[in-house]
Amino acid sequence: MDPNTTLLSSVQNPRIKQLVKLRDRSERESTGQFLIEGYRELLRAFEAGRTISSLFICPELFLGSNEHSLIARMQKKGTQVLTCTPPVFAKISYRDRPDGLLGVAPQRHLSLNDFDNLLRNQSSPFLVVAEAIEKPGNLGTILRSSDAVGLHGLIICDRCTDIHNPNVVRASVGTLFTVPVAETKGDETLRWLKEKKIKIVAATPSATQEFTQVDLSGPIAIAVGTEQLGLSARWMNEADIQVRIPMCGVADSLNVAMATTLLLYEALRQRQMRQ
Amino acid sequence: MDPNTTLLSSVQNPRIKQLVKLRDRSERESTGQFLIEGYRELLRAFEAGRTISSLFICPELFLGSNEHSLIARMQKKGTQVLTCTPPVFAKISYRDRPDGLLGVAPQRHLSLNDFDNLLRNQSSPFLVVAEAIEKPGNLGTILRSSDAVGLHGLIICDRCTDIHNPNVVRASVGTLFTVPVAETKGDETLRWLKEKKIKIVAATPSATQEFTQVDLSGPIAIAVGTEQLGLSARWMNEADIQVRIPMCGVADSLNVAMATTLLLYEALRQRQMRQ
Repeated sequence: MDPNTTLLSSVQNPRIKQLVKLRDRSERESTGQFLIEGYRELLRAFEAGRTISSLFICPELFLGSNEHSLIARMQKKGTQVLTCTPPVFAKISYRDRPDGLLGVAPQRHLSLNDFDNLLRNQSSPFLVVAEAIEKPGNLGTILRSSDAVGLHGLIICDRCTDIHNPNVVRASVGTLFTVPVAETKGDETLRWLKEKKIKIVAATPSATQEFTQVDLSGPIAIAVGTEQLGLSARWMNEADIQVRIPMCGVADSLNVAMATTLLLYEALRQRQMRQ
Repeated sequence: MDPNTTLLSSVQNPRIKQLVKLRDRSERESTGQFLIEGYRELLRAFEAGRTISSLFICPELFLGSNEHSLIARMQKKGTQVLTCTPPVFAKISYRDRPDGLLGVAPQRHLSLNDFDNLLRNQSSPFLVVAEAIEKPGNLGTILRSSDAVGLHGLIICDRCTDIHNPNVVRASVGTLFTVPVAETKGDETLRWLKEKKIKIVAATPSATQEFTQVDLSGPIAIAVGTEQLGLSARWMNEADIQVRIPMCGVADSLNVAMATTLLLYEALRQRQMRQ
């Protein structure tokens, strides 16, 4: 099939209007679809085995020469490809610098049952629990760091941010598709972690030990909370390991994604030393 | 002076229009003024000795009870206080959740000469050089982490982001006022660092040693580059210490603020052990 057979040249086209609607959470939730924009993000989704239902392209905006082979591979898997004029692509793009590729894909939701399978062969599970993170950029950045340390999975509790928000996809640079993400409730997660004997690690200024001084090489779930208020009292009370991140200046806390990244890399360092 | 004597109730008021204009870089540069919004940010600016020329308040939006004492302290130092109606404050606020305080302050610019004085008594300078960072949020987050580790100063080379952008102030949660920031050119900075015998540290995937395996306790400047392309070849070639941040997943790099934070905290850990 030649992608040029369908040329979308009007921003009034219903398919174009539908794409713009998918920026809204309510539309994403009612359709079960979401947007993946950008070559790198789409490549990572495709290589992670995710289905791309339709792909909107604008060859005038391609930055490299690999786009055509990715498009051909997607078409072989059944992706419908539609070509847009530059003004139409400008309308559907979510980015400052569009690179001419925007896909629509079905959402995927994992549960803690899926995590049971995922962790079956892991002697030392390495997880993050994110409670009520509000900013898509922070969630995306946490995913990017999680991918970088080879995290086994991220559990989102009592979510505020929709993981299929375009800004999560963008800030994660496509690692949303490589890091397993489960969405569930806090109670259920606490029970599951206790049952699996996975220790909850929480950062708090009142901890006596610094994060570099405690053993993070065993089965752990690093728990992080909202940008405004930090981790809730419930999670803090249930934490098996409390750690302190040194704060030498006037500010009393780090950005949540920074704090998470520091704990992730300290755990990775200790795990690598053990091997 | 009673702040209630001046009540701004029209969004057409020229002073209100001027505040909105200060969101634009060109207006900030031509007037030498910038915006500081939020109790925490204004408190940090004030306590760091910064002048607040005027303060726009909306008591209906105050979140706590400390606002009045801060306002009184500012008035004693000559700040002009103007009270706004909630609709007017909604117009001037740059935030999702305004807390009823927005200040206008003169910009402050430091040079490498100022840094000479600043570092006079430091046997082991601890600096960051940020080359051409584009996103205000990243620059603000780097400032927040810099404050947290007690960094001596941040040098912005060949700037893309205006450090007085409201999003830098916001993401830094006011640490823009506690971390000394110099703005200059790359050439000049390279010469200055060599002269001061401050070693340039750069992260690159091609380095042989991980960042936790090299000595970062001496006089160092951690150099970080643009979000898209990383550090320029010039800076990479001049680096005295190249380090690798482990990347175990599909992504080939971390967000620039994450990478900077990891290096900052590793340097802090080593410096604390030396003491």
